[in-house]
Amino acid sequence: MDKKPLILVTNDDGITAPGIRTLIEVMNEIGEVVVIAPDSPQSGMGHAITLDSTLYCDVIANEDEPQLEYRCSGTPADCVKMANSEILNRKPDLCVSGINHGSNASINVIYSGTMSAAIEAGIEGIPAIGFSLLDYSWNANFEGLKKYVKKIALEVLQNGLPDGVVLNVNFPKLKNNEFKGIKTCRQARANWVEEFDKRTNPVGKEYYWLTGKFINMDAGEDTDIWALENNYISVVPVQFDLTAHKFMQNLKQWNL
Amino acid sequence: MDKKPLILVTNDDGITAPGIRTLIEVMNEIGEVVVIAPDSPQSGMGHAITLDSTLYCDVIANEDEPQLEYRCSGTPADCVKMANSEILNRKPDLCVSGINHGSNASINVIYSGTMSAAIEAGIEGIPAIGFSLLDYSWNANFEGLKKYVKKIALEVLQNGLPDGVVLNVNFPKLKNNEFKGIKTCRQARANWVEEFDKRTNPVGKEYYWLTGKFINMDAGEDTDIWALENNYISVVPVQFDLTAHKFMQNLKQWNL
Repeated sequence: MDKKPLILVTNDDGITAPGIRTLIEVMNEIGEVVVIAPDSPQSGMGHAITLDSTLYCDVIANEDEPQLEYRCSGTPADCVKMANSEILNRKPDLCVSGINHGSNASINVIYSGTMSAAIEAGIEGIPAIGFSLLDYSWNANFEGLKKYVKKIALEVLQNGLPDGVVLNVNFPKLKNNEFKGIKTCRQARANWVEEFDKRTNPVGKEYYWLTGKFINMDAGEDTDIWALENNYISVVPVQFDLTAHKFMQNLKQWNL
Repeated sequence: MDKKPLILVTNDDGITAPGIRTLIEVMNEIGEVVVIAPDSPQSGMGHAITLDSTLYCDVIANEDEPQLEYRCSGTPADCVKMANSEILNRKPDLCVSGINHGSNASINVIYSGTMSAAIEAGIEGIPAIGFSLLDYSWNANFEGLKKYVKKIALEVLQNGLPDGVVLNVNFPKLKNNEFKGIKTCRQARANWVEEFDKRTNPVGKEYYWLTGKFINMDAGEDTDIWALENNYISVVPVQFDLTAHKFMQNLKQWNL
């Protein structure tokens, strides 16, 4: 590449999260960085977009660092749409989202704001990667992830990604970040079993907090959950053509 | 089935929308109906879930009709979780979501609250269908859809659906609802090209409305968009294993 690649950085934990700061630092070593991220946490937002209310998008003054930064009142998917249509004057060469504070492996990809930003970029034809660390703590240690984040980003810039595919990268939580390596995986079959925490508010009305337990129903050793449990970094290629092609012929036999 | 099937009904336009009323009416002919739907419109919510705030869920008194109804302060996916874990005392035989006021064909499936409810049910092992009519009007005419909705629901109850698959059903907007028939299709490759409508608020601050144009990039005659443009009802089998299996071998060749 003659020119420095243009890299769009976003996330779902909000622009002040430590995870996105690590991602910005690494991307500044690779290319020209523009950050457009939510002004507040957007975890669990799935692929939500803002249709019924207004959006604000403000530039943030930041004279000490090379990247341009914007904070947006919308969801992660809104941020990517806003970047491509209003902020950037050319199509980015790469979009990276994260580093998320918490897992987006297995079925979490469906609920993930981090991955929705990567998928939105993919829909708009931009090679994209979502990064997550299996540590919900705001003080999670992202230091040891940097060289892997850089390696994966450079590989995507070099090889490109096929139309309709983005990458979902998850890092296990390890004390000294001694990862065994990077594994290409499929999404493990798993779900959350909900446990609603029912309480009563000060005026006597019942309300709930959504909590749950993650249940892995997949014994395969080729899954992201297996890789993470065995100290590997998982990389799942993710598509947004949701058609269940395998079931198509069967469905055509129905009496519809 | 010896016993009447238990049918969970939800949507994303909110419990007062005409579309869900039609769906309830049809499902009352088939089984025992429980409705748990958002208390306000949730369009474009994708697969959002409520993690950072409380949820309310209230039973609605309704003595004239056979179904039980609850309104919930959360998203469509929250409603399904709440139903299965707090409200229902057995697993539903079917979950239907909609009838949505507006299209969920092609890439819209990604942004759709209607489909997120169906997908959430699918994740929890319940056969599920999302229904949508390509008419955003609150006064859309749902009358002619009833017999098809019933037919498709009965087929799903009879045949079941494979693990990990739900159905996305869209109806074209036709003057006299003279549908040519039902077509099993794949999701068309398409996207939205955003056009942010930039305005200035009364105190001089710029804000945006998200608008856009739907661009179909898929000339195939086996897609949902083709079916709908040719007056067919489209049925797409949808999966939530997002792994891009076809790209897996290729990705394994990378130097990761």
